[in-house]
Amino acid sequence: MENLRSKCISLLEERGVTLDDIADCARFLQAEYHIDLKKEELLESVMSVLDKREVQFAILTGVELDRSAERGQMIDKDLEAILRRDEGLYGVDEVNAYGICNLYGSIALTNFGFIDKRKYGIIDYLNKHGKSGVTCNTFLDDIVGAIAASAASRFAHKWGK
Amino acid sequence: MENLRSKCISLLEERGVTLDDIADCARFLQAEYHIDLKKEELLESVMSVLDKREVQFAILTGVELDRSAERGQMIDKDLEAILRRDEGLYGVDEVNAYGICNLYGSIALTNFGFIDKRKYGIIDYLNKHGKSGVTCNTFLDDIVGAIAASAASRFAHKWGK
Amino acid sequence: MENLRSKCISLLEERGVTLDDIADCARFLQAEYHIDLKKEELLESVMSVLDKREVQFAILTGVELDRSAERGQMIDKDLEAILRRDEGLYGVDEVNAYGICNLYGSIALTNFGFIDKRKYGIIDYLNKHGKSGVTCNTFLDDIVGAIAASAASRFAHKWGK
Amino acid sequence: MENLRSKCISLLEERGVTLDDIADCARFLQAEYHIDLKKEELLESVMSVLDKREVQFAILTGVELDRSAERGQMIDKDLEAILRRDEGLYGVDEVNAYGICNLYGSIALTNFGFIDKRKYGIIDYLNKHGKSGVTCNTFLDDIVGAIAASAASRFAHKWGK
Repeated sequence: MENLRSKCISLLEERGVTLDDIADCARFLQAEYHIDLKKEELLESVMSVLDKREVQFAILTGVELDRSAERGQMIDKDLEAILRRDEGLYGVDEVNAYGICNLYGSIALTNFGFIDKRKYGIIDYLNKHGKSGVTCNTFLDDIVGAIAASAASRFAHKWGK
Repeated sequence: MENLRSKCISLLEERGVTLDDIADCARFLQAEYHIDLKKEELLESVMSVLDKREVQFAILTGVELDRSAERGQMIDKDLEAILRRDEGLYGVDEVNAYGICNLYGSIALTNFGFIDKRKYGIIDYLNKHGKSGVTCNTFLDDIVGAIAASAASRFAHKWGK
Repeated sequence: MENLRSKCISLLEERGVTLDDIADCARFLQAEYHIDLKKEELLESVMSVLDKREVQFAILTGVELDRSAERGQMIDKDLEAILRRDEGLYGVDEVNAYGICNLYGSIALTNFGFIDKRKYGIIDYLNKHGKSGVTCNTFLDDIVGAIAASAASRFAHKWGK
Repeated sequence: MENLRSKCISLLEERGVTLDDIADCARFLQAEYHIDLKKEELLESVMSVLDKREVQFAILTGVELDRSAERGQMIDKDLEAILRRDEGLYGVDEVNAYGICNLYGSIALTNFGFIDKRKYGIIDYLNKHGKSGVTCNTFLDDIVGAIAASAASRFAHKWGK
């Protein structure tokens, strides 16, 4: 699985997302509880989330769909159009993200809902950039939100022990 | 089920929550999409959410736990203490709320996460009031958030057709 | 959405699944409660499940992934191999199916778990056929199970009123 | 949390469930993959599941509701009656159990659905005993199923690495 994690990290970078970006989103989610938390302190949690097989498969699958739509290679052209315009009522992108959050419990799910609506940092960038017509980030912004939400939840549970 | 719905509405009122309060939270969640939506327009969605058996049972069960803790009648005194101080890492209150949101899809879940963190209107009131030491609203604030999030999601899907 | 439903029904048929097959799985799930239920009585529930936007999008997305893997058109060849051999620990196929079941509550989820393990009728056929090396049904068998589980849950709730 | 785990184990025993019983259910769920697995090999997974805070809170809360109904101490007598007769459409007991399974991914959820319907070992005993009119096991049988399903899923993921 070590190999799959490395592959996922490379894939995220290729799509414009660094581990640092994700740790910064996780820090944002924890900021109300720990005002001077540094994002470095959340990196370990991000790495641990990326270690899980189900997280890795959610990343690979979501990014496959984004890239396939972006390149115009989808078999179903209606679906391709829905993904390219990041249609709000599509919902499968969030379902895929819940597959990540659920592993980290109810706090991860509420964290995700918050950052998905509030759009912070790289998530805001991905979302805006994904609507440019060139790139498709329909799945990616939710995946990043879910990893950050999960890392923040993991941190909260550890800190709360 | 008509009877169970009436019972739930009475129970919510007894605990300080009107249908109007919930509709106002649902309106808040939809406001970014429809700026001059009136809460009245969301009342029908709130009523429809309250029609579902699983929603009714989630309300009855959550309020039972709140009242039992509030009256000092719990068998497990550790659990009673956790509920009375609305411990952040408890999580079962959110799990109960997801039982409602899940019925309305992924938009309901993100709506819930947002309003649960952002605490608007009656939810803010319940949350603060519940920490007074007199009342216990540990389950209720999440239930109200979940009904509002579900009603807003239902409205979005109907409007989006 | 009428159009999207028709599209989904055609797509399912193209992949070897009729509405009748799904209704028969739903009947199987209800059989222990209503021994002489006819599958025709469950067709209306199947149609109603297929009416939901989130169900339609789950079908379109899952079948896209199956077909893309089957044709060797995936960008990520590791993911393609995982889908083609229907790897047991992949899990994203079930997450996509839960996006359907969750809309029909906890009974739909347990129904799904049961039929996913017990493999009845068309689900058994899809599963075996999908491992032939020619066809890929990794997402489809779970989608069919989820629609049947949801239709059975909807029927149980209606009948129980 | 060590203390909370001990407390949960005692509480389960008091309600008639040993760690051994749960490990045996987990073994049953894995039996089709590893025919001569001993239940002892699954005990470590059961213990690890019981280590999670959210699992502990789900146990405490579910058992509280069972005991409160059993003793006739519920405030809401309609709810008490529903719990005492373990009404099939109630659903909150399963929602509470999903709060456990979700932490162990999609395999845990399908495992749960299967054992919840197939009723094996202690789960069958709890279910039958709970309908005797003396004991109420409405939440407990699902909790035990969820812990076993999660332990089996954890084992499958470890073994699959």
